[in-house]
Amino acid sequence: MSLLGIDLGGTKLASAVFTEEGSLLSRDSILLEGRTGEAVGKLVTSRIGILIKEAKSNNHNIDSIGISVPGISNTRKGTVWAPNIGGWESYPLMAEVNEIAGDIPVIIDSDRACHVLGEVWMGSARGCRDVVFLAVGTGIGAGILVNGELLRGSNDVAGAIGWMALDRPFRDKYSECGCFEYHASGEGIARVARDLLAENVTYSGMLRNKEPQNINASDLFNAWEAGDPLAKEVIDGCIEFWGMAVANIVSLFNPEKIILGGGVFGPAVKLIPTIMKEAIRWAQPVGVTQMSLEASSLGGDAGVYGAGYLAFKNLNTLSLTKK
Amino acid sequence: MSLLGIDLGGTKLASAVFTEEGSLLSRDSILLEGRTGEAVGKLVTSRIGILIKEAKSNNHNIDSIGISVPGISNTRKGTVWAPNIGGWESYPLMAEVNEIAGDIPVIIDSDRACHVLGEVWMGSARGCRDVVFLAVGTGIGAGILVNGELLRGSNDVAGAIGWMALDRPFRDKYSECGCFEYHASGEGIARVARDLLAENVTYSGMLRNKEPQNINASDLFNAWEAGDPLAKEVIDGCIEFWGMAVANIVSLFNPEKIILGGGVFGPAVKLIPTIMKEAIRWAQPVGVTQMSLEASSLGGDAGVYGAGYLAFKNLNTLSLTKK
Repeated sequence: MSLLGIDLGGTKLASAVFTEEGSLLSRDSILLEGRTGEAVGKLVTSRIGILIKEAKSNNHNIDSIGISVPGISNTRKGTVWAPNIGGWESYPLMAEVNEIAGDIPVIIDSDRACHVLGEVWMGSARGCRDVVFLAVGTGIGAGILVNGELLRGSNDVAGAIGWMALDRPFRDKYSECGCFEYHASGEGIARVARDLLAENVTYSGMLRNKEPQNINASDLFNAWEAGDPLAKEVIDGCIEFWGMAVANIVSLFNPEKIILGGGVFGPAVKLIPTIMKEAIRWAQPVGVTQMSLEASSLGGDAGVYGAGYLAFKNLNTLSLTKK
Repeated sequence: MSLLGIDLGGTKLASAVFTEEGSLLSRDSILLEGRTGEAVGKLVTSRIGILIKEAKSNNHNIDSIGISVPGISNTRKGTVWAPNIGGWESYPLMAEVNEIAGDIPVIIDSDRACHVLGEVWMGSARGCRDVVFLAVGTGIGAGILVNGELLRGSNDVAGAIGWMALDRPFRDKYSECGCFEYHASGEGIARVARDLLAENVTYSGMLRNKEPQNINASDLFNAWEAGDPLAKEVIDGCIEFWGMAVANIVSLFNPEKIILGGGVFGPAVKLIPTIMKEAIRWAQPVGVTQMSLEASSLGGDAGVYGAGYLAFKNLNTLSLTKK
């Protein structure tokens, strides 16, 4: 059996063919190069068409296709909302892919859902049934597995953990992206640093050498490594927010594992023991001793692995339904 | 078919016999009268024994038994942890009930799980598949239904929402009961009022007439109705916490409904529109428009109805497994 996993990101399209045991048969990646709207749809379908043909010529048919999208997949309508792809407010991806896939079953899900599935299949959370993938990149989202099943919610928008309220009172600046994401996403780290640079006129450390609008999370981690006091203030704040978020996941979901991933983990992986200490202060005390906090082991590949596992799970669900 | 629902609380034991459609055939309630340990177990088993016999003599056998407990049911070990019943750290309730129940299947779950099941069966959330019951009484807990199934977590302690971190920085006083419960439970309302009375020496309103240690949540709601400024400060704070909690449930779970219950809702039911306004500020903006915030319609009966539905669901699961 061969499974095709497609991971559509905001800037590139990754594809991989897997065996049902999760071994990689082939993989590739193409940049979107500024494509928007239907041009992105065309890139996805043409890639799928090529890979189906290639597989045939190698005598291993594709049996199932899973697609990870950078946004929300409306499972009832077959449409995708992807804020970083122009014209993808309600894009009919399922219909387009079905046309090229023919009889091969297709399933589409959000990147956050695929991240957790990838880690459960071949990564840090292998075999877990209750596990949360907390993705901290430009934004913040969570892929949540409850008793082995993806938590979707009533309208496919569950896991929007970037909106978690953690710091009262409400401030208007939270209304664009949510309180947690405002303070502790990749963008948030840079934003908080800019605010502090503006307030703190006497600071003359290394971050003063950059144009404030060009400062990014990476600069903050570098400055923090070098012992910069302003960077320390920003990162300490993030540790507090990440610890509170981990604690809230523990108290609500009682998972076996929480996996930290996304671009920020990355450089923030070394902070995991400190984040765990903060989480222990806040969380339900029994649940927190039953949880292990770990870095993603698949990193940037979690999405494409998750799309492959999504394809695998879908095939099993379909065969159960037919019985 | 007859279903026996047992709701063991911290001070009383309620029982009810239902048809599979949820109609009440009989009900009763006994006070625990200070019983602890095995005496509580004996009360439960003797009550079940009597009700099985009564049903037989009325020609409607009990087909399934569900039990709601005021704590955590360890489904693997069959034991119960109930902090308000002396000697129930790891009480072997399942074994004791099985002895009297014989072939009748028995299932035990937490009160928070039973509350949400009761509302789904015969209350405010009838037919919902994604719904959360937020119980605000002496403490705070949540019963969470995800795609029609109870969220238990890896070790049965999911839904410990009283531990939710909502107000940084961490303070030592949170370590006994959690941040959310500290500020916004029934006990929390009284606690915050006492703190304010101690700080605010110039206040001479109606709450000054009570001994601080005797003040309870009810007094605060009465003073708030009468326009007392200290009561307003306390209740405004609670509205903020409840709104943030509702928002976090929306962003994480994307439920159709959130049901507010427990002793505090009750008097706080009239605050629901204001709590909803606060939640809208914080929550993921799509999910919050898809959610309806409602009061429990079963009130104090949610537990016994939930225990009945638990019995019903267990019978169906068992018959599916046998097939």
